[in-house]
Amino acid sequence: MDPMKDFFRRDALAAHLGIELLEVAPGRAVAQLAVRDCHRNSVGLVHGAAMFALADFAFAAASNAHGTVAVALNANICFLRPPAGGTLTASASEVSLGRTVATYAIDVTDDSGRKAAVFQGMVFRKGDAINWTG
Amino acid sequence: MDPMKDFFRRDALAAHLGIELLEVAPGRAVAQLAVRDCHRNSVGLVHGAAMFALADFAFAAASNAHGTVAVALNANICFLRPPAGGTLTASASEVSLGRTVATYAIDVTDDSGRKAAVFQGMVFRKGDAINWTG
Amino acid sequence: MDPMKDFFRRDALAAHLGIELLEVAPGRAVAQLAVRDCHRNSVGLVHGAAMFALADFAFAAASNAHGTVAVALNANICFLRPPAGGTLTASASEVSLGRTVATYAIDVTDDSGRKAAVFQGMVFRKGDAINWTG
Amino acid sequence: MDPMKDFFRRDALAAHLGIELLEVAPGRAVAQLAVRDCHRNSVGLVHGAAMFALADFAFAAASNAHGTVAVALNANICFLRPPAGGTLTASASEVSLGRTVATYAIDVTDDSGRKAAVFQGMVFRKGDAINWTG
Repeated sequence: MDPMKDFFRRDALAAHLGIELLEVAPGRAVAQLAVRDCHRNSVGLVHGAAMFALADFAFAAASNAHGTVAVALNANICFLRPPAGGTLTASASEVSLGRTVATYAIDVTDDSGRKAAVFQGMVFRKGDAINWTG
Repeated sequence: MDPMKDFFRRDALAAHLGIELLEVAPGRAVAQLAVRDCHRNSVGLVHGAAMFALADFAFAAASNAHGTVAVALNANICFLRPPAGGTLTASASEVSLGRTVATYAIDVTDDSGRKAAVFQGMVFRKGDAINWTG
Repeated sequence: MDPMKDFFRRDALAAHLGIELLEVAPGRAVAQLAVRDCHRNSVGLVHGAAMFALADFAFAAASNAHGTVAVALNANICFLRPPAGGTLTASASEVSLGRTVATYAIDVTDDSGRKAAVFQGMVFRKGDAINWTG
Repeated sequence: MDPMKDFFRRDALAAHLGIELLEVAPGRAVAQLAVRDCHRNSVGLVHGAAMFALADFAFAAASNAHGTVAVALNANICFLRPPAGGTLTASASEVSLGRTVATYAIDVTDDSGRKAAVFQGMVFRKGDAINWTG
């Protein structure tokens, strides 16, 4: 019913990892991950790459939601503490929006509301319109 | 037969994504990903988070292969170009090794040998010995 | 009169660049730079390294203000737009504070209140007490 | 006699800090800093921002030496160890060169030849020709 959400649901990696898009609007997005065994590393902790993938998905949704193609240039992630509980939430907000480049901050929080990771990313805006239903 | 390789094969996220560890030794590691549909984003390109996960796995293997627990503090990834072909390879090398902190550079290359992404990461070395067979 | 502020004023690079510490408390700091010709690059714009130095000084003050030595591990800066006007302000806030590692976010804003750069940095906390008057 | 080197010598911040450009060619550059008291922090160590400024200058020279304007988007610096001796050298090399974006790796080494910091940065290439003598 929401062609923009449906578009992002075609993200095969996010689907494979069980990442869900809760909200998306131009410049912001919220995504969630219910942690399962397949998201853990060799010592049983939530994998840094799972937190990255979650944050990256919110980053992609927020930056593409302006309706023109945005491709990631760069991302920096700081791992703050092992997350508690079973659900991780990534919230992306827009730090700057230029004609060709935009910057986003994404926080990954756990069930207790504490930040587990922070992610800072830039995209290149190609200018091509996205066909949400294409 | 190689307890260290077997240890890293217990990384559930890497297994879920089909990432394989080819080589590992103290301070260096090589990992590989045969790209499948589940590694793509909503426009059909190889997902940035798949390249991150591949690089991150080589980073973890290289840094933990000293035999003491190393946890990721920070990672910076630059996306250079969409990869060509069907296999991605991540090679991690050690930039510095201190008592409590170490730094790694990881290149992600495609079948043509060109770099698709570069990753720079730091770990905190906790000092606890890893039990490879535990 | 304020031994902590006096301590940071012994930062010779900050003094050489004309960077002033306006506020400092455990986990947060504000620093300012009145832009002069020596802060410009070869095309006359405010230098990225001047914005980095300003943000880095607020980062150092915020992280050391807990009273134990904190050394920078890593910093990531995104340049958002050329700053307008003659004064730049860096505000550092603490994202996480662990026993050995802490993370900070620093915004660099211009006279118009718009962000010119964002900086994300981590420190290693050595545990040695700082002698503010030493 | 070398208009390109002369152009970069107009970088006022580099001049103010005593940073010298030793070599520059499309995609690569070497810069040097003889450490003085004004490059130190409040505890007497070489300032992280001085190492950043040195690396950033090599980054700017390497990326602009193609003859079209390149502006920094992003930089990530990892501080590896306090440098030894009195001279720091930054060597920039090109990791990728696209039509609109390029990526560079810059190593900062000390007199002993050991890396004190590594810097990874991206530029946006505006396409405007640089007038070296303008």
